[in-house]
Amino acid sequence: MNGQTVHFDRNAPVGIFDSGVGGLTVMRQIRRLLPQEHLIYLGDTARVPYGTKSPETVIRYATRCAQTLTVRGIKLLVVACNTASAYALDALRAALPVPIIGVVEPGAQAAVRSTHSGKIGVIGTPGTVRSGAYERAIRQLAPDARVFLQACPLFVPLAEEGWVRGDVPFLAANRYLGRLKQRQVDTLVLGCTHYPLLRGVIGKVMGPDVSLVDSARETARETRRILSAAGLIRNNGRPGKNLFLVTDNPNTFSGTGARFWGHPLEHVEWVDLNP
Amino acid sequence: MNGQTVHFDRNAPVGIFDSGVGGLTVMRQIRRLLPQEHLIYLGDTARVPYGTKSPETVIRYATRCAQTLTVRGIKLLVVACNTASAYALDALRAALPVPIIGVVEPGAQAAVRSTHSGKIGVIGTPGTVRSGAYERAIRQLAPDARVFLQACPLFVPLAEEGWVRGDVPFLAANRYLGRLKQRQVDTLVLGCTHYPLLRGVIGKVMGPDVSLVDSARETARETRRILSAAGLIRNNGRPGKNLFLVTDNPNTFSGTGARFWGHPLEHVEWVDLNP
Repeated sequence: MNGQTVHFDRNAPVGIFDSGVGGLTVMRQIRRLLPQEHLIYLGDTARVPYGTKSPETVIRYATRCAQTLTVRGIKLLVVACNTASAYALDALRAALPVPIIGVVEPGAQAAVRSTHSGKIGVIGTPGTVRSGAYERAIRQLAPDARVFLQACPLFVPLAEEGWVRGDVPFLAANRYLGRLKQRQVDTLVLGCTHYPLLRGVIGKVMGPDVSLVDSARETARETRRILSAAGLIRNNGRPGKNLFLVTDNPNTFSGTGARFWGHPLEHVEWVDLNP
Repeated sequence: MNGQTVHFDRNAPVGIFDSGVGGLTVMRQIRRLLPQEHLIYLGDTARVPYGTKSPETVIRYATRCAQTLTVRGIKLLVVACNTASAYALDALRAALPVPIIGVVEPGAQAAVRSTHSGKIGVIGTPGTVRSGAYERAIRQLAPDARVFLQACPLFVPLAEEGWVRGDVPFLAANRYLGRLKQRQVDTLVLGCTHYPLLRGVIGKVMGPDVSLVDSARETARETRRILSAAGLIRNNGRPGKNLFLVTDNPNTFSGTGARFWGHPLEHVEWVDLNP
């Protein structure tokens, strides 16, 4: 928070960003827990995905997204993208005067609470896996934990295509997850906001004894904790509003996004991050 | 060409751009046919893919790529990306003072030459399919042709992941291509530069009686024709040089790109399109 003392208005919105539609699974959990908050979501759909891009590029994009939300007067920023959380959180915290929550730490906490054997699997984009962020976060909480990582690059396009059941996603999951099954992990972190849509096939491959950890719920709880601790919960009895900003065509976002958000998306506006 | 008269140097390089690595399949064919040309390739890897993005965004990105190559003094520009060719060719031709070749027209010409029944299938990204560019180009050459289009969004990530053989790509191809088989097309245009890597499974699904048209070869022939007609073929007996520019990390590009280029990639440099 850069050493400054900044006072926030409890009626100010919470800002949430992701590379595309995936972060809507996080926003959905936040909306469920905090029905009175105003929420502004930014999906960087003109430059999606982040998960296959380099740290430098992800940091550059994440910073522009965070700035765009900050100038709208948000009281808290949720980085609802695992790759951006893994690579850019320190840079964002150094640069911006708002409290910032990523999805990696809440996911790591939930995994450590869930595991009995201490063997934890983490699946994510190539970027998230390469960053080592989950491994660091888990071992800070549980130094003896053994963490096994696996990148699953096809899961994002499968989820966006809506192929979340049937033989293609099942065989892909089987191929990606074989090594983690062999390692007998008892907990698997779904380290990408798209993956909860594939929970069915992932659970089928891993079997009933493996707990699947979805960072979205944990991140929503962390959001409530931080707002509450700061006295910034909005509770004036009226439901909060949702606003969606995207960097590419709003109509495409509304179409794909509805699957992630669970209802049709209204109030989707285009913003330019490279004016 | 904007009405200007511009004189080009036959020793100037040919510029080629794509959203990422896919256009290397086109550059490879150009290198094969024109061993003495200097070639500069630009892969917009920081913003890849284009195929799922809107026309406005693709035109904006394609224009920046084309400008970046034009200032390096190219004598000809090859738009080695189907989505950019489908959406942006007119805008680029209006804006830039170099001759410009896309991949759609050469692909359409090859399809019309190949078909006997007049029933032509075209597969591509959602953007290429939505644009209607192949249908227009084919029907201009063969007004009675019947054109059947199919978007195959998972083919690009499958090719980039290197999953080009085995059950996952086969089942995906089966699902995407079923309708085109029912229509009994006798020719199928691989309307995305990534798809030649999946030629094996696509051919297996479509069967031996369907000709697969790969725009890359056709585009290389068109490049030679245009340079030759303009007296701009470089033929001083020495082999041409290759230079690769990318907007994201050069190392990642070298890794994935080698599969598309057929050899290890040397001379890969980073460029910033948003200075």
